[in-house]
Amino acid sequence: MNIQPILTNEQLYPYLLKARYGIEKESQRVTKTGDLVTTDYPKKLGNRSFHPYIQTDFAETQMELVTPVTNSVSSLFRWLAAIHDTVYRSMDPKEMLWPMSMPPALPKEEENIVIAKLDNFEDVLYRRYLARSYGRRKQMVSGIHFNFEFDDEMIQKMFELQEEYKNYYQFKTDIYLKVARNYLHYRWFTTYFFGASPLSEPRYFNGNEHPEEPVRSIRNSPYGYKNHDDVQVTYRSIEEYVNDIQQMVEEGKLSEEKEFYAPVRLRGGKSVADLANKPVRYIELRNIDLDPYQPFGISKEEVEFLHIFMLFLLWTDEEAEPDDWVEQGEQLNNLVALESPLAQTTCYDEAQRLIVEMRNFIEQTGLAVSTEVLDQLEEMLDDPSQTLAGKIYLDSEKSSQQELGAQQGLSYYKKAWQAPYQLAGFTNMELSTQIFMFDAIQKGFQIEILDEQDQFLKLTAQGHNEYVKNGNMTSKDTYITPLIMENKTVTKKILQRAGFRVPQGKEFSNQKAAHLNYEEFRDKNIVVKPKSTNFGLGITVFAEGACKNDYAQAVDTAFKEDDAILVEEFLPGTEYRFFVIGEQVKAVLLRVPANVTGDGQHSIQELVAQKNNDPLRGENHRTPLEKIQLGQSEEFVLREQGYELDSIPKQNKTVYLRDNSNVSTGGDSIDMTDAFSQDYKQLAVETAQALDAAICGVDMIVPDVNAPAHTPNAYGIIEANFNPMMHMHCYPYKGEGRRLTMDILKLLYPDFVE
Amino acid sequence: MNIQPILTNEQLYPYLLKARYGIEKESQRVTKTGDLVTTDYPKKLGNRSFHPYIQTDFAETQMELVTPVTNSVSSLFRWLAAIHDTVYRSMDPKEMLWPMSMPPALPKEEENIVIAKLDNFEDVLYRRYLARSYGRRKQMVSGIHFNFEFDDEMIQKMFELQEEYKNYYQFKTDIYLKVARNYLHYRWFTTYFFGASPLSEPRYFNGNEHPEEPVRSIRNSPYGYKNHDDVQVTYRSIEEYVNDIQQMVEEGKLSEEKEFYAPVRLRGGKSVADLANKPVRYIELRNIDLDPYQPFGISKEEVEFLHIFMLFLLWTDEEAEPDDWVEQGEQLNNLVALESPLAQTTCYDEAQRLIVEMRNFIEQTGLAVSTEVLDQLEEMLDDPSQTLAGKIYLDSEKSSQQELGAQQGLSYYKKAWQAPYQLAGFTNMELSTQIFMFDAIQKGFQIEILDEQDQFLKLTAQGHNEYVKNGNMTSKDTYITPLIMENKTVTKKILQRAGFRVPQGKEFSNQKAAHLNYEEFRDKNIVVKPKSTNFGLGITVFAEGACKNDYAQAVDTAFKEDDAILVEEFLPGTEYRFFVIGEQVKAVLLRVPANVTGDGQHSIQELVAQKNNDPLRGENHRTPLEKIQLGQSEEFVLREQGYELDSIPKQNKTVYLRDNSNVSTGGDSIDMTDAFSQDYKQLAVETAQALDAAICGVDMIVPDVNAPAHTPNAYGIIEANFNPMMHMHCYPYKGEGRRLTMDILKLLYPDFVE
Repeated sequence: MNIQPILTNEQLYPYLLKARYGIEKESQRVTKTGDLVTTDYPKKLGNRSFHPYIQTDFAETQMELVTPVTNSVSSLFRWLAAIHDTVYRSMDPKEMLWPMSMPPALPKEEENIVIAKLDNFEDVLYRRYLARSYGRRKQMVSGIHFNFEFDDEMIQKMFELQEEYKNYYQFKTDIYLKVARNYLHYRWFTTYFFGASPLSEPRYFNGNEHPEEPVRSIRNSPYGYKNHDDVQVTYRSIEEYVNDIQQMVEEGKLSEEKEFYAPVRLRGGKSVADLANKPVRYIELRNIDLDPYQPFGISKEEVEFLHIFMLFLLWTDEEAEPDDWVEQGEQLNNLVALESPLAQTTCYDEAQRLIVEMRNFIEQTGLAVSTEVLDQLEEMLDDPSQTLAGKIYLDSEKSSQQELGAQQGLSYYKKAWQAPYQLAGFTNMELSTQIFMFDAIQKGFQIEILDEQDQFLKLTAQGHNEYVKNGNMTSKDTYITPLIMENKTVTKKILQRAGFRVPQGKEFSNQKAAHLNYEEFRDKNIVVKPKSTNFGLGITVFAEGACKNDYAQAVDTAFKEDDAILVEEFLPGTEYRFFVIGEQVKAVLLRVPANVTGDGQHSIQELVAQKNNDPLRGENHRTPLEKIQLGQSEEFVLREQGYELDSIPKQNKTVYLRDNSNVSTGGDSIDMTDAFSQDYKQLAVETAQALDAAICGVDMIVPDVNAPAHTPNAYGIIEANFNPMMHMHCYPYKGEGRRLTMDILKLLYPDFVE
Repeated sequence: MNIQPILTNEQLYPYLLKARYGIEKESQRVTKTGDLVTTDYPKKLGNRSFHPYIQTDFAETQMELVTPVTNSVSSLFRWLAAIHDTVYRSMDPKEMLWPMSMPPALPKEEENIVIAKLDNFEDVLYRRYLARSYGRRKQMVSGIHFNFEFDDEMIQKMFELQEEYKNYYQFKTDIYLKVARNYLHYRWFTTYFFGASPLSEPRYFNGNEHPEEPVRSIRNSPYGYKNHDDVQVTYRSIEEYVNDIQQMVEEGKLSEEKEFYAPVRLRGGKSVADLANKPVRYIELRNIDLDPYQPFGISKEEVEFLHIFMLFLLWTDEEAEPDDWVEQGEQLNNLVALESPLAQTTCYDEAQRLIVEMRNFIEQTGLAVSTEVLDQLEEMLDDPSQTLAGKIYLDSEKSSQQELGAQQGLSYYKKAWQAPYQLAGFTNMELSTQIFMFDAIQKGFQIEILDEQDQFLKLTAQGHNEYVKNGNMTSKDTYITPLIMENKTVTKKILQRAGFRVPQGKEFSNQKAAHLNYEEFRDKNIVVKPKSTNFGLGITVFAEGACKNDYAQAVDTAFKEDDAILVEEFLPGTEYRFFVIGEQVKAVLLRVPANVTGDGQHSIQELVAQKNNDPLRGENHRTPLEKIQLGQSEEFVLREQGYELDSIPKQNKTVYLRDNSNVSTGGDSIDMTDAFSQDYKQLAVETAQALDAAICGVDMIVPDVNAPAHTPNAYGIIEANFNPMMHMHCYPYKGEGRRLTMDILKLLYPDFVE
C-alpha cells in the first residue's frame, strides 16, 4: 500500500493531530532523603485490586499510577497531575516518590525487597514467579508505558482512500503492526534522546553481569528488564504475533501473556487471543525511562514528539523483511543504549536523516505543529550533554545520582503539599469539586468530568454510576426537596407545621405593599431579605428596630435580588451552619462576617490587603476562603460604625466589613462541630428530615451553645440550603477540618468507601 | 365582664377583621330543566367516605360541598368556586346543581328518594334512622353551614385585657357561648334579610302540616328541618350544653350527636365530649338558606356581614337569663320566618335598633369596613321586596319557583363549562397547576397552596404528604436528574453512551471560538442553540447549511441566552414531544410553529389577530395555547419567506411566523399519541430511564412515523425536559386531550387514584 498519498490527502488533515493517550507510570516510594521505604502500601488509598488509577507494580514500594484514556495531551497531563497529587497526599507525609527509572540503593538481602501484598493470591504467585525467574532486584526498575491510539476517524478515512484492503479490521491492525515494527526498528532514536538511566545504584546488579557505566539507558539495554532470550515473538502478522505469544505461554517460556516485556505491545481486547477477532486498538510503548526533571516523569514535549513520531512511523516505509527489520532495530538499540551518555552516537548520520525526513513529512502533510522539537533534537544530537542521560550523568557528577533523585523528588513532594486543599490539574474547578475528586480518586472511583464548567461528574464503582454536581447535588435527594428549600416561604411553612421554631414573617411580591407595611414592623427586630437568593445578597438585618427610611431602603435592596421578599422576625443569637449528610450532622460551622483586627498602625484598607494576602483567600470558591471586597456594602457597614477605608483601628480592635457572615463575602469560617451537644445536632437532622433532604445545610440561630436545645427559644431555624458549600468545612479558617466530601461518597456508595 | 372597653382597646384593632371561615353547602343534583335526577353519585369523584371537599348529605342526589378552612373571605370564595367547578365538571354533563334550599318537585313515592349509597354501613343506617324519624321528604332541604372562628390572637389579647377569668380555655369558651346565645336570640334578623325559602315545591309537605305560603323561610320555620320538640339543649354553660346533648343521645332522643340540628353548634374537638377539656374553637351557623342569585349559594357581602354580626353579638350584652334569651329568639324567629315575604316584619323597630347599634359598634371600634351593607339592610327593612325571600317570591310569580331555580342553575352550569380547562378561583395560576388541582380536588386530595406564585402545592391523602411544583416537579425524581437535563451536553453524553442516537455537536463557552469554528460546520446542517434554556429562545436552525454571516448571527443570538452554546448536527425529520410518566408514554404531541392560513383577503397581521381571538389562546401559560406575537423574531421569519406583516397570503397558504415549534411562542399543539407504535414509545421510556427520570418530556426527531423505530436513522433524541408543560397535552389544538395531571397523581399515590 502506498501510504504517503493517503496521509497527504486533505481529507485526513483534520484528524492527524487527534489521538487518544494514556500513561502508566511506576515509581518507588522513598523517604525524603531518597531511601527505599519499608512501609506498607498507603492505607488511605482504595483497594488496589480494582483501583483504576493507583496500583502496585512488583514490589510493595512500587506505586503504579494509571491515567484514564484522554483525548488531548493537556487532559493527559491534568490527570497525571491529579493522580500524582492524590498519591502524594495519600502517602505518609514522610514519604515521597522516587523520580527515576533506576531504583535507589536496594536492600542488602534480596528478601527484604517486599513483593506487593496484594489481595488476589494469583497476583502474588505471579510476582513470586517473577522473583524466581528474574530476581527481585531487576524488577525494581521503573518506567512509563505510553498508550497511543490514532483517531478512529483518521483510520476510517484512510481505509476509504485505499483499495488494497477490503477488510477494515485487517487494515487497522496492519496499520498498527507497521507502526510497531518501525518503532522496534527505530527505538534507538528515543533511547538516544530520552534514555534516562545512565547509572545504577548500589546492589541493583549485586555482582551480576553489568554494563560499563555510565550508559544512555540501562533499562533499555540488554542489562535492563527484558524477557529471557528464548522468548521470540514475530510482528510479521497479527496471527503469527498471537500464535507466538500463546506458544511461549504454552511452552512455559512465559508464565502469562503479560510477562511479554517487548518495547511495544499491540493492544485490543482483554487478552492477546482477542486480537484474532478484533482489530488492534492501540499500541503500548514500554521503553520510556522516567525523566527526573519532570514532576510526572515525562514532559508534554516528549508526548507531543511521540505523537508525531507515531505518524512518521506510519508514513515511512520499512526497508527490510519484518523480522529482519525488527532484529536490526534490536541491535541498533542495544548499541545506543550502552553508549556513554556524553559520547556522540554511532547512529549520528541515521538520526540526522530521520530528522530531515520528519521535517519532510511535516511539510508534506502540512501538520500544524512547531518544528521546534526537531530543532531541539538536532541540538541534542550534536551535543549529547543535552540528552536526558547526559544531563542526569552530569548532574550526578556534581553530587550523586541518589542526591539528584532525592532533590528532584523533594521538589515535587513540596509542590504537592503546598496547597493541600487543591487538586492539581483541576484547580480551575470549584474547590468543593476538587476536594471531592481528590477523595474519589483516592478511594478508587472512576471519574468522568461530564461538564467542567458545571462541576458535573460521573462516578463509577461496583458497576454502578452516580452523577454528582457541585459535589453535593446527587440522586440521594429528590427533585422537590431543593425546590422547597429554594422557596423560603414554603420551607418555613413546612418546618413550622413540623413543630420547629422558625422566624415569623411576611412575604411581599409587591414593592409598594412592602413599603406600606412598615407600621407592622416598626417596633420589631426584623430581617429583610429576598425570597430566594444565595450568598447572602440583598439581606438587611435590623437587630434593634428600623426607622422608616432604613426599612424602605432594605426593602428596595432585597427587591433588587428577587421579585419577592420576606420581612421576618429577627431571632437574636448566633447563626451556625449545620451540615447534614444522611442522618448525621457531619460539621457545624460558625461564620464570622468579613473582618480585620486593628494594630494601631495600618488603615482598614491596608489590613484588608494583608488579610487577603493569605493564599487561602481567593475568588469564586477556588480557595477555602474568599478575599474581602471593598465595595459599596463594605463601605456602608464601615460608615455605620464610624469608619472610613483609611481609618486606623486601635490595637486588637475587630472591625467588621459586612453585616452578613457568609464566607462568600469574605467571612471567616470557624469549625464548631465539637462544641455542640447531640440535641442540637438531632434538631438539624430532624429539620433535614422534615424537608426530606439527604444533603443539606441547616442554618440555625442559637443564643447559647451551652443551653439545652429544649430550653424555650434555645434555637430558631433560619433556612435550609440545598447547595451548601463544603470546602469551607473541609478547610476552615480556624478549627478542625471536616471531610464532608468523603461523607458524600460514603452516602452514595456505603459499601465501597470504608 | 365589661366587654366593650376591651373590644375598643386599640391593641385589638389589628385582629378584629381577621378570622377563619369555612362553608359546607348542600345542593341537589337536577336535570338541566330542574328535575331531581335518579342517577348515582358521579363516578369520577373520589370516594365520598373520605373526600375532604365533596360528600353526600342525606340523599344520593344531595351533594355536599365543603371548603377547607380559610383565612380570608376572598380565599373562601376561591375555594367555593374551585370546588363548584370540579363538582359541575365531574357530574354527567346532563346534570347540574339545584341552587335553592327548597328541593324541586319530589317523587310521588317517598321510597324513590334514594338514601345516599355510602360505603360505610353505619352511615347508611344513620340515614335510614333519619328517614324513619323525620321522613325522607324533609331531609331533602338544603342549606349552608357557615363555620366561623375569631382570630386566635384577638381572643388572647382580650384575655390579657380582662381580669375576671383566670382560665384561658374557660374564657374562650364563654366568648363563643355568648355569641351563640346572642345569635340564637337575634337570628330572626338573618332570617328576615337572607331567608330564601318562601315556597315549597310539589310533594315536599305531601299533605302533612304546612305553613301558609309564601313565607320568608320555610327552612328556618317550625315547618323546616329541625329536631323534635323533646330535644332540649341549654347554652347556659359548656358543661350543661355537653351534658344535655349526651343525655339526649343516652335517652334515644337523638340517635347521635350530629343529629343535633340547632341553628348554632359549638365546635371544638371531634366529639361534643371533647369540649369538656378543650375550648370551643369555632361556631357553626346552620340556618343560612341557599341564595339562588349566587353561583355558590351565598354572597361575599353576606359572609362579610356575618363576620361583623359575629363581632356585634360578642359586643352586645344579653338582656335576659340565658335560656330565656334563647327561647325569646326562637319565638321571634318563628314569627319572622312565617311572615309573608312582602310584608313588613313585626320586628321592624327592633331591627332598626340593631342596625343603629351596629353602626355605633363600628364607629366605636373604628372598624375599617364600609357601612354600605348596613345602608342596604335598612333599605331591605323598609322594602321587603328587596329581601332574598321577597325577590324569589316575586321572580317566581313571573313564571314559577321551579323555572327560576332551573334558569339560575343553568347559568351557573354554563359558566362552569364555558372554559372547561380552567379551575375557577385559581385562574391566576398556571394552567397545568389549575388542571392538576382540578383532578386532585375531584379525587379527594387535601390541597394546600404553599406558594401561589410559585405553583407550589402540598397534597395529602392516606395520611401521606407530597409536595408538587408546577404540577410535574415531585419527589419521584431525584435532584440530579433535572440537573442532567438542564445541561444539554451532559444529557447527550449520557444518552449517547446508553446507545441512543443523539445529534453530534460541539459546545462553546467562548463566543470568539464559536465564530472561528465556522469551517467545521460550513457544509453541515446544524442547529445553533444556547446550552441551557427553555421555551426555544435563542435557537437557530440551518436545515441546508449556513453562510458565515448567518452562522455568526446565530452564534450571537444563542449567546444572548446563555454563556455557553451548542452547535449541533441538524437531524432532518419532525420533532415530537413524548411525555413519559413512570414507565409509560402518556402522550405524544406534534408542535407546529406559530402559523396562520391565508384566505386571500386578510393580511398576516389581521390573520394573527383573528387566530389570537380564540379564547384558548392567552398569555403566560394560563390557557391551552399562547397568542402569536408579532415581534422581531416573527418579522425576521416572515421576511425570510418574502412576507411583511401586511402581506396578504393566498387562500389556504400556511404562513409560519416562527422557526421553532414551541407552543410558548404561539405554536399549535396536535396530539399524536395514537399515531405512534409502541417501539417509539419504548424508546422514549428508555431515554427517560437512562436519565433516571420519572416525569420527563422527551423531544424526538422522527422523519417517518410509520417506519419501524429500529430502522437506521429512524429517530434522534434532541433533548429531555424536566419541566415539561402538561396543559398543551391536556387541551391540544387538535386531537384528543391526554389527562397527564391525573397520571402524575397516580404516580404519586398509586393506591389512591383509580
